[in-house]
Amino acid sequence: MSMKIAVLPGDGIGTEIVAEALRVLQALDLAFEFEQALVGGAAYEAHGHPLPESTLKLAQAADAVLFGAVGDWKYDTLERALRPEQAILGLRKHLQLFANFRPAICYPELTAASSLKPEIVSGLDLLIIRELTGDIYFGQPRGRRSAPDGAFAGAPEAFDTMRYTRPEIERIAHVAFQAARKRRGKLLSVDKANVLETFQFWRDVVTEVHAQYPDVELEHMYVDNAAMQLVKAPKRLDVVVTGNMFGDILSDEAAMLTGSIGMLPSASLNARNQGLYEPSHGSAPDIAGKGVANPLATILSAAMMLRYSLDQADAADRIETAVRAVLAAGLRTPDIWSEGTRKVGTREMGDAVVAAL
Amino acid sequence: MSMKIAVLPGDGIGTEIVAEALRVLQALDLAFEFEQALVGGAAYEAHGHPLPESTLKLAQAADAVLFGAVGDWKYDTLERALRPEQAILGLRKHLQLFANFRPAICYPELTAASSLKPEIVSGLDLLIIRELTGDIYFGQPRGRRSAPDGAFAGAPEAFDTMRYTRPEIERIAHVAFQAARKRRGKLLSVDKANVLETFQFWRDVVTEVHAQYPDVELEHMYVDNAAMQLVKAPKRLDVVVTGNMFGDILSDEAAMLTGSIGMLPSASLNARNQGLYEPSHGSAPDIAGKGVANPLATILSAAMMLRYSLDQADAADRIETAVRAVLAAGLRTPDIWSEGTRKVGTREMGDAVVAAL
Ligand SMILES: CC(C)[C@H](C(=O)O)[C@@H](O)C(=O)O
Ligand SMILES: CC(C)[C@H](C(=O)O)[C@@H](O)C(=O)O
Repeated sequence: MSMKIAVLPGDGIGTEIVAEALRVLQALDLAFEFEQALVGGAAYEAHGHPLPESTLKLAQAADAVLFGAVGDWKYDTLERALRPEQAILGLRKHLQLFANFRPAICYPELTAASSLKPEIVSGLDLLIIRELTGDIYFGQPRGRRSAPDGAFAGAPEAFDTMRYTRPEIERIAHVAFQAARKRRGKLLSVDKANVLETFQFWRDVVTEVHAQYPDVELEHMYVDNAAMQLVKAPKRLDVVVTGNMFGDILSDEAAMLTGSIGMLPSASLNARNQGLYEPSHGSAPDIAGKGVANPLATILSAAMMLRYSLDQADAADRIETAVRAVLAAGLRTPDIWSEGTRKVGTREMGDAVVAAL
Repeated sequence: MSMKIAVLPGDGIGTEIVAEALRVLQALDLAFEFEQALVGGAAYEAHGHPLPESTLKLAQAADAVLFGAVGDWKYDTLERALRPEQAILGLRKHLQLFANFRPAICYPELTAASSLKPEIVSGLDLLIIRELTGDIYFGQPRGRRSAPDGAFAGAPEAFDTMRYTRPEIERIAHVAFQAARKRRGKLLSVDKANVLETFQFWRDVVTEVHAQYPDVELEHMYVDNAAMQLVKAPKRLDVVVTGNMFGDILSDEAAMLTGSIGMLPSASLNARNQGLYEPSHGSAPDIAGKGVANPLATILSAAMMLRYSLDQADAADRIETAVRAVLAAGLRTPDIWSEGTRKVGTREMGDAVVAAL
């Protein structure tokens, strides 16, 4: 039986980098069925909506979604519901992709690209697990009104609702404890229990779930402190679990510690291990179409797809090994290039990974 | 007429570091009236509440509050309303201290203490302006209930309300534009307008207020991107304004970039320039009572107090110059000590600043 992959390249460099990931997958000699669709700004241009019904249906019917990137300055003035980012939020919500895996790995060859000292980041390998379908991203009610109370009662105000239910916290906690068990047996849960009701509850529930994982060491930390520890000593952290809003901020901060965000993949999974796989970086409209974008984050996202959604861990290993070989051989796209290495374009980088497989 | 200062040393190292700041103020030969009171854990032990009525009254009647730090592990199991941090939140709310100034300065002598490369942080001097009395910190309603709707309707849930009224955004925007005007004429406003109603409104109102400051260059950035830019190239930023929650995270991240958080003061002001001044670091119960805490952040907070609340800019300059002289002379408390400098304790550091005045 072949594996059904929905391919959603999106905007900007999305098409170029997804093309290379597809070539790598095709070189594996596994039975894939790829079906491509428009998403983001490209879908808005063609169909008037960033996540057309047909694209959503395709994603829902697939075993996994390979996603490029969405967004461009030119859509900034559209009303919110039509902007490219809504496609990502819609896919997360409709596919119930509640578990977002964001590895932050600093490859030895690329340590110099980091703004941090080499001894602080070399060998960094941490995993941020971000809850992705709850929190203030989706909480109702939200909107504008006149302030019902407070020092400025009657003034125009805008508001949002942060919320988490017990089952939402439980399921992400289980995912995180299991991931920690497979790694260093340590889990850091990040919250703001000293201020927020939602995150005092988060801390309570994570602590309860911990009883089922006595072999994992659990630590709690406030989000402001976590933002500091990431800068100060990121290698002390291993698996970090947190809510949607804090996870958005911390996973990007962690990615930037490596200095090579063009290398970082991500996975977003639901309870049936259906997943959406995308690079951690954005659509980079400024370099789109120039053939210089780094396809490695997308290629490594395809590897995560094989491992998490398609039960093809060996094939995932092969891709990851090939990427490491290409780095070791000195090939670099411009974003990670440094003196003494060979500058290549998107296509040439893809070729090299295929050759190294 | 003498200037009335409420002195609230608090817990942990609070008493030691505030004592040195007081000695520095006393050496200035200005007419101060100091009145001391308990706050935080110390107040809870003595009066059963972290912010007793008498302490709040004293703070309200003063021209400024000099605050040490609060908190200790041993209060972690108290119900939230009685924990030391509630004293800070209560003071902010009752005194309406809406404008929080958090400078992140990397002193040339201390560049090596940073986990970032010297060329990335040397000479760093940025100012984060955090709104401090609104947002999800104080928004009502909040609490626990059974989920009224959503995929887990009926399940236990906790929730909080994020909200900002137009006048709240306007007043912090004015403070920020005015601060930017006195510096490099550049303001970065950080939001999450792509996801949150509250911060789309924030962006709209800040943009409107900008019309009154055509000489200041305004840029908007999403909070996840801001967390990255702080790590990547912090010197490109100058004045950053944001809400209470994002400000909590970004100001601590920015502070840690310097590697010497023991040096960083803060000011929290209301519309009448009444203010609360405290170091950016915490109560460090692990080193309390040992005479090794760094008093410089508190001493520099006293300087900010002179400048912002007491209209004594010359005296503020004198303190800041004295601190720089002491650093240049090679004196270091253990937290900022490095090979080739002289290690001193809290008291000796205070002595040195007084001598340098
Ligand atoms: C585009 C935006 C809605 C999204 C988010 O905030 O989740 C992005 O920042 C991300 O992290 O995937
Ligand atoms: C102690 C806590 C309530 C407080 C906050 O979150 O504001 C602290 O982190 C700060 O930044 O002053």
